[in-house]
Amino acid sequence: MTGAPPRELVLIGIGTGSIEHLTLQAVREINAADLILIPRKGAAKADLAHLRRAICNEVLSNPATRIAEFDLPERDPATPDYLRRVDDWHDAIAQVWAATIAAHLLEGTGRIALLIWGDPALYDSSLRIAARLGTMTVRVVPGIMSINMLTAAHAIALNRIGAPFIVTTGRRLREEGWPQGTDTAIVMLDGECSFTHLDPGGMTIWWGAYVGMPEQILIEGPLAEVRDRILATRAQARARHGWIMDIYLLRKDAA
Amino acid sequence: MTGAPPRELVLIGIGTGSIEHLTLQAVREINAADLILIPRKGAAKADLAHLRRAICNEVLSNPATRIAEFDLPERDPATPDYLRRVDDWHDAIAQVWAATIAAHLLEGTGRIALLIWGDPALYDSSLRIAARLGTMTVRVVPGIMSINMLTAAHAIALNRIGAPFIVTTGRRLREEGWPQGTDTAIVMLDGECSFTHLDPGGMTIWWGAYVGMPEQILIEGPLAEVRDRILATRAQARARHGWIMDIYLLRKDAA
Repeated sequence: MTGAPPRELVLIGIGTGSIEHLTLQAVREINAADLILIPRKGAAKADLAHLRRAICNEVLSNPATRIAEFDLPERDPATPDYLRRVDDWHDAIAQVWAATIAAHLLEGTGRIALLIWGDPALYDSSLRIAARLGTMTVRVVPGIMSINMLTAAHAIALNRIGAPFIVTTGRRLREEGWPQGTDTAIVMLDGECSFTHLDPGGMTIWWGAYVGMPEQILIEGPLAEVRDRILATRAQARARHGWIMDIYLLRKDAA
Repeated sequence: MTGAPPRELVLIGIGTGSIEHLTLQAVREINAADLILIPRKGAAKADLAHLRRAICNEVLSNPATRIAEFDLPERDPATPDYLRRVDDWHDAIAQVWAATIAAHLLEGTGRIALLIWGDPALYDSSLRIAARLGTMTVRVVPGIMSINMLTAAHAIALNRIGAPFIVTTGRRLREEGWPQGTDTAIVMLDGECSFTHLDPGGMTIWWGAYVGMPEQILIEGPLAEVRDRILATRAQARARHGWIMDIYLLRKDAA
């Protein structure tokens, strides 16, 4: 006896909305799982549960693999502190994961998989939530990130030759302005078009919404020229689809 | 007649050394190519030509796809300016690409593919070289980056919650010290263990060599404690394999 029964959690990066973003490793790991957990957020399309189901329909050929959907808890808006609110939310999600696993893996052992949008390392909380589950071994299967989809769709490089770039959030860009020490910033998690807070002179933007998905929209150009078009396009797309996920790369023009 | 015959260059990200890093899209695009170009660097294992050949052996099932190897020109050490030296080198590579394509696509049309280590957007020059080829359409297929492999292998997140991170080079870290405005730096292209130039206090490193490959080596811990072990391990591995490719994530510890 070596204590608790072996349980393994595999966080599988699935890319950004196309089944073709799956790696051969991701396909193998999906089929090696005893249980796949799929989160739901009420009726919201933004939970992307339909995409996770489509991936399982398309690549899962192991009849022994079970799929369990669960309702994702919501963040409590009554908790004023942002980090505390997120922390409490992660606790609640960990409890739901544990309950769903207990309900479906009656033998208490096995391999559980979660299909993670993009790559599990990037602006995703699954690793932090998994750490709350105690005895479980955690493995990560890397995935194509929206960053890679954005640059691929525009056929641009992330960096200038030998130069750095920063990946940051809309909130940071609004609150802190242009990041120090780099001419290139990739901005994510931006619900408020935070580029409107920058002086648009001498700067080019490569913007994308729903990158990698059939709904993909791309706009690029000098920020001063395309800023308003992005604002209008984004508002229309969000109204039409009921949700939006966008990302952009900003680069200061060469002197 | 619409002018020049249609030619398309597809830059296919292949991940970092495991065939399992290929996406389903990459496999499809490899098989859709008329010609695949594989660069060689003399007898150096670091050209990874053997890995590109292995990928073609494993996933290429289209008998019409041709494979052409070519010798990569070398940078001219007599050119003192770094950016100029790189620029001249890219010109020379573009000429070799053009000559190899002309020798193998006699009809002058078709789809040419290059298998790009990692993702074509990240510290790779193929997009810049392709821009020199004039009439060719360029498409990019995103790939798993060594950044994703490093974080997956260590099962860590790139960012703290809502926080930014920077991707930079060994040279920048040596010359400019810790980057402003972030607690997390991913360092690439570092032949000189540039972390030795930092005050190691209050900092954790997650280091990896040959990430994603059978030779993979991982070390993590407080920089002050593991710094010397990384130096020794890196030197030994480089001597044993004849080449090394490493990457690391540095994070300032929470206050």
